[in-house]
Amino acid sequence: MSSERLLLQLEIDQLNADYAAALDEKRFDDWPLFFTADGKYTVQGRENFDRGLPLALIALESQGMMKDRVYGVTQTIYHAPYYTRHVISPARVLAQEGSLVTAQSNYAVFRTRPGDSSEVYNVGRYIDEIVRTEAGLRFASRLCVYDSEMILNSLIYPI
Amino acid sequence: MSSERLLLQLEIDQLNADYAAALDEKRFDDWPLFFTADGKYTVQGRENFDRGLPLALIALESQGMMKDRVYGVTQTIYHAPYYTRHVISPARVLAQEGSLVTAQSNYAVFRTRPGDSSEVYNVGRYIDEIVRTEAGLRFASRLCVYDSEMILNSLIYPI
Amino acid sequence: MSSERLLLQLEIDQLNADYAAALDEKRFDDWPLFFTADGKYTVQGRENFDRGLPLALIALESQGMMKDRVYGVTQTIYHAPYYTRHVISPARVLAQEGSLVTAQSNYAVFRTRPGDSSEVYNVGRYIDEIVRTEAGLRFASRLCVYDSEMILNSLIYPI
Repeated sequence: MSSERLLLQLEIDQLNADYAAALDEKRFDDWPLFFTADGKYTVQGRENFDRGLPLALIALESQGMMKDRVYGVTQTIYHAPYYTRHVISPARVLAQEGSLVTAQSNYAVFRTRPGDSSEVYNVGRYIDEIVRTEAGLRFASRLCVYDSEMILNSLIYPI
Repeated sequence: MSSERLLLQLEIDQLNADYAAALDEKRFDDWPLFFTADGKYTVQGRENFDRGLPLALIALESQGMMKDRVYGVTQTIYHAPYYTRHVISPARVLAQEGSLVTAQSNYAVFRTRPGDSSEVYNVGRYIDEIVRTEAGLRFASRLCVYDSEMILNSLIYPI
Repeated sequence: MSSERLLLQLEIDQLNADYAAALDEKRFDDWPLFFTADGKYTVQGRENFDRGLPLALIALESQGMMKDRVYGVTQTIYHAPYYTRHVISPARVLAQEGSLVTAQSNYAVFRTRPGDSSEVYNVGRYIDEIVRTEAGLRFASRLCVYDSEMILNSLIYPI
């Protein structure tokens, strides 16, 4: 039992680390693959989340919508380039029911614009529903609840 | 032996994650419960810590004092509201003697004020004495040694 | 197999935590000891790394050169003092071939100057080759690829 719990923690922390690496290395085409085919990716301000309000900054409801978003980000949106760097703390594993794991992690994303110093870009909490698939753990849902009420410029790349 | 060590690491990292979640979600009434009844919570500037000087910004010497502090923070102190977000790195487990574990972790606390972007608020090191109780691991002592010599506005919520 | 993988993760995360503690506590003489005798320590901007360009800010090719650097930092370079604080996320363990482990970790280093608030100093990724020695895990190579294109003042202490 304990060794299963240890392995689960390892797998989730590695999932988070791999997710961060894909985004920070700008391998955006890999990003939807961290989700199930009908996986959900939501970015919501904490103000709305805490009040139970539905409005979210970004709400994608399938891998297809994520691929579309990646296309938009890399091919069509005109924006100033920047680097991101994710630092994610060890996940809190909150529940496990069958193959569904509920976990949360605090994250800090730092942004660096060309020729500039790095700055705090977006901090918050991942609220995740994770399922085991043949290809390993995948997000059935990743909800990014961000504290940062004023977003520096705009949020282009996934959090 | 090794599996015990792995489990201990898991438990301490989860304790830190739970502690962070309670504070970041503003569940302040839960905060004293992370300590033993006679637990100590100290917030001290690194300048004094390094010199062995006793002066600390905050020094609470029991759960009762912590509850009093929570009452002050939530009911009586007039202050501008802000969110905190803790990112805590995996703990260094330094010693284990009987039921007492000595551990340290680096932390970064980010602050977000309403309508504003997030900023680095307080960074430093937790120096912890942790004991095993019937309810799980608890802090017999948590000493927060912060680098940040100038504290943005004031330090209201626990670190 | 799984328990070996768990132990390896624990050891690498502890190595990173110990490394961070040595630097943040200014125990600079301990820093070269985290490397093998012919270990390499490189600090390179992401811009050059991504393009495969060789230019690096710092490139030390042995423990001896690191000791020399420490002597320079602590005894000869005139610079304004500052504290550092490392927050390192759990490592991604990417490969293991014999006694050589390849791992990467995201890091954020915060800087605090006397009397000032803390700020984001340098963020990036450690790209590590780690070997097992009689004294424990050591870096055969640590490459720090930093996002931060503009370095605040100058980079004195190791990252």
